[in-house]
Amino acid sequence: MTAGLYKKGINGFLRSAGTNIFTRNMSLDASKLEIIKTTTPKAKLPNDQLVFGKTFTDHMLEIEWTSEKGWGKPVISPYHNLSMDPSTCVLHYAFELFEGMKAYRDSEDKIRLFRPDKNMERMNKSAARIALPTFDGEELIKLIDQLVLLDQDFVPKGAGYSLYLRPTLIGTTASLGVGIPDRALLFVIASPVGSYYGKTFKPVALEATDYAVRAWPGGSGNRKLGANYAPCVQPQIEAASRGYQQNLWLFGKEGYVTEVGTMNAFFVFKTSDGKKELVTAPLDGTILEGVTRDSILELCRERLSSDEWTISERPFTIHEVQEKAEKGELIEAFGAGTAAVVSPIDRIGWRGKDIAVPAGNGDAGELTKTLAEWIRQIQYGEKQFKNWSREAK
Amino acid sequence: MTAGLYKKGINGFLRSAGTNIFTRNMSLDASKLEIIKTTTPKAKLPNDQLVFGKTFTDHMLEIEWTSEKGWGKPVISPYHNLSMDPSTCVLHYAFELFEGMKAYRDSEDKIRLFRPDKNMERMNKSAARIALPTFDGEELIKLIDQLVLLDQDFVPKGAGYSLYLRPTLIGTTASLGVGIPDRALLFVIASPVGSYYGKTFKPVALEATDYAVRAWPGGSGNRKLGANYAPCVQPQIEAASRGYQQNLWLFGKEGYVTEVGTMNAFFVFKTSDGKKELVTAPLDGTILEGVTRDSILELCRERLSSDEWTISERPFTIHEVQEKAEKGELIEAFGAGTAAVVSPIDRIGWRGKDIAVPAGNGDAGELTKTLAEWIRQIQYGEKQFKNWSREAK
Repeated sequence: MTAGLYKKGINGFLRSAGTNIFTRNMSLDASKLEIIKTTTPKAKLPNDQLVFGKTFTDHMLEIEWTSEKGWGKPVISPYHNLSMDPSTCVLHYAFELFEGMKAYRDSEDKIRLFRPDKNMERMNKSAARIALPTFDGEELIKLIDQLVLLDQDFVPKGAGYSLYLRPTLIGTTASLGVGIPDRALLFVIASPVGSYYGKTFKPVALEATDYAVRAWPGGSGNRKLGANYAPCVQPQIEAASRGYQQNLWLFGKEGYVTEVGTMNAFFVFKTSDGKKELVTAPLDGTILEGVTRDSILELCRERLSSDEWTISERPFTIHEVQEKAEKGELIEAFGAGTAAVVSPIDRIGWRGKDIAVPAGNGDAGELTKTLAEWIRQIQYGEKQFKNWSREAK
Repeated sequence: MTAGLYKKGINGFLRSAGTNIFTRNMSLDASKLEIIKTTTPKAKLPNDQLVFGKTFTDHMLEIEWTSEKGWGKPVISPYHNLSMDPSTCVLHYAFELFEGMKAYRDSEDKIRLFRPDKNMERMNKSAARIALPTFDGEELIKLIDQLVLLDQDFVPKGAGYSLYLRPTLIGTTASLGVGIPDRALLFVIASPVGSYYGKTFKPVALEATDYAVRAWPGGSGNRKLGANYAPCVQPQIEAASRGYQQNLWLFGKEGYVTEVGTMNAFFVFKTSDGKKELVTAPLDGTILEGVTRDSILELCRERLSSDEWTISERPFTIHEVQEKAEKGELIEAFGAGTAAVVSPIDRIGWRGKDIAVPAGNGDAGELTKTLAEWIRQIQYGEKQFKNWSREAK
C-alpha cells in the first residue's frame, strides 16, 4: 500500500527508488539549519501602524519534505515569494494547515514564546488529519527561536504588542490526482502586530448562526486546517450585513454553542446555588483545541476559588444563554484565541433579536479583564507559570 | 459594509481609492485576450504514457481580479510557475475552487467541449460560496476555447482519451486577516489524459464510511471547493489499507448513501413491480452537482423506457443496498464523474463485510456500458444531443 509506504517513510527506513540500498528517511533536524541573511533590511513600523498579518519581518523559515527523503535542511532566508507549479495540490485540494502563535518582548528585552509546545502538538494533529508529514515539535521550536532571534528587532514593545508567528504546512505535489502528497513545504513567517481588533477590549457583536454549519462530528473542524476557514466567510458577510462582526456557530437542532471560528467562546453564568459558572464547549470534535482556551481553563481551575466558581467544559445551547440573559444570570461572555487573546462579547444576535451581554458596554467583564491580565503577565515574562513562557535562545 | 462594497464592485460601479471619479468595475471580457506563444514547445507523449493530471500543455490562461478594478485582461502565455507571497490567503484559508472538464478530438479532428456551460454555472456557485468573484461563464468558455485551439495538438485521439481542463479560482490577497479576498486569480491549465483509473472499466471497490463525514447540511460539500478534498484523503488511506480504492460516504445514523468524493454514485435495483430502478442521491446540499450525474439522469429519462425503468433521485441507505444485494435485487452500481465518466463498482465494504455487486466481475454492468457509450458518442461528436457537445472555435 502506498499509505503504508509513506507512514513507514516518515518514521523509519524507506527503500529509495532505483537503488538497492536502504536510505535513511530523515526526521526534522534543527542542527542542520542554514541561515542566509538579508542584505536589504526593512524599516520597522511604529506600533500604531501595525496591521494584523499585513507586514512581515526580514526573514522566513522553510523546510522541504519529500516522501522519499523525509525532512530536508531547514533554511532561514530573506522573506520571498513562493514559486509553485499551477497544478500544486495545495491550490486545488486544500492540503494546508497552520498555527498561530506569538513572541513577546519582556522588560529585559528578551524574546519569549507562549506555550509553543501546544502549537506543535496541534500542528502535528492537523498534519496527520490530512496526510501531511508529522515532525518533532521541539526541533521546530528551536528553528522558530532562531528566526525570532534573527528578526528580534521586529518584536514590538508594549502590552498587547507582539510578533505573530505563522507556521504553515502545505502539500506541494504537482499533480491533479487526488491522493497523498509526496512533497510538502513547512514554512514560518512572522508579522509584528498589535491587538487583532485594532485596540484592546473592543467588544464584538456575534450572530448566532444555524443556517450554515462550521463543523460536524467526523469532519475536520477540530483541526487547524485551511479548509475550515473559506467556507465561513460568506456567513460572516451575511452577519456583517446585519451589524455583527463574527458568527457564533451553533450545532444541531438543539442549538449547541460551539465556537466563533477564529476564537473559542466562554460564558459566565450565575447558578442556583449562588456560585458562578465559567462555561465553554467540550472538545467533542467540532471545535478547535484552542491554546488560549486551554490556558484559561487551567488558570481558572488553579486560581479561582471553588467555593465561588465552577469551571465547566460541557455542552450548552443558545437557548440556555438566552434564558440566563432573560433571568439576569448571564454575567459576561468573551472569545479566546491567540490573535485576540480575550475579546469581550457585548451582544449576540439570535433569530432577529439581540441577547445583551452585561459588562460589555465599551469595556470588558471582570473575569475577562482578570484573565487578560493573568495571561499578559505570563506572556510578557512578568510572572512564571508552569514554564508556559519560554525564552527564545 | 465591506461586504456590500465588494458586491457592488463586482457588478457595478466602485469609487476607486484616492480619486473623486467613478471607475467602471470591469466584467470578464474575452475580447481583450492577449496571447503570448511559447518559443519552446513541449514534446507530446504517446497515449499509453499519459498519467492523469501529471503533464500539461504548452500554455495556460490567467485572469486577475481585484475588488477595485474587477476582471483584468485575460492572458494566455507559456505554462509557468505561479509566484505568490507566503501570506497569500489561498495557502492559509483555502480560498480555492476548481472545475473538471474535458476537450475531445472528433473524427474530423475538430475539438469539442462537453457541456462547458454546466461547469461555468457550478464554478460561479462555488465562487459565491466562498466570497470569490463571479463572472460571465460564456466569456470564460470563449477563452478556454482559445486555449484549447492553441494547444490542440495536445488533445489525444481515441476513445477514452481527452484533454482534461482545470479551471481554478484562488484568492490571492497577501494578508493573514481572515476576510473577503480583495484579489483573486482565475487560471486554466490543461492535461492530456486517458482513463482516470488507468484503463476503461476497471471496477472499483468502495468502503462505505460512516466514522468520517465528507459533507453536511449547511456546509459546503455541494460546491467544488478545495476544502472538500484534503480532509477525505486520510479516510481513503484507511480504506486502502483494507483493500478499497475509494470511500462511499454515508451520512447520518440512518446511513444515507451520498457520493464517492470524486464521483457521484448510482445503483440499479430490481423493484417489486418487476421494473428496474436507477437510483442516485438527491441534490440536498451534501453531494456535488455532478455534470456527468446530470447527463446520466437526463439521458436515462429520455432514452430508457418508462415501462421498464424508474429513474430516481431519492434518499437511500447502505442498509437498502445491502438488503437488495441479499435478495438478489442489486443489478449493478457505478460511479459517475468527469475524470472517470462511469466506473463500475464491484464491491462495497460495510462493517467488515463485502456487499458484492453483480456484473462487475472484471467488466461493467449493462447500463454502465450503455451509458459509457451514449456519453462517448456525444463527447466525441458522433451523435448530437441538445448541443451538449460544443465545437471549440
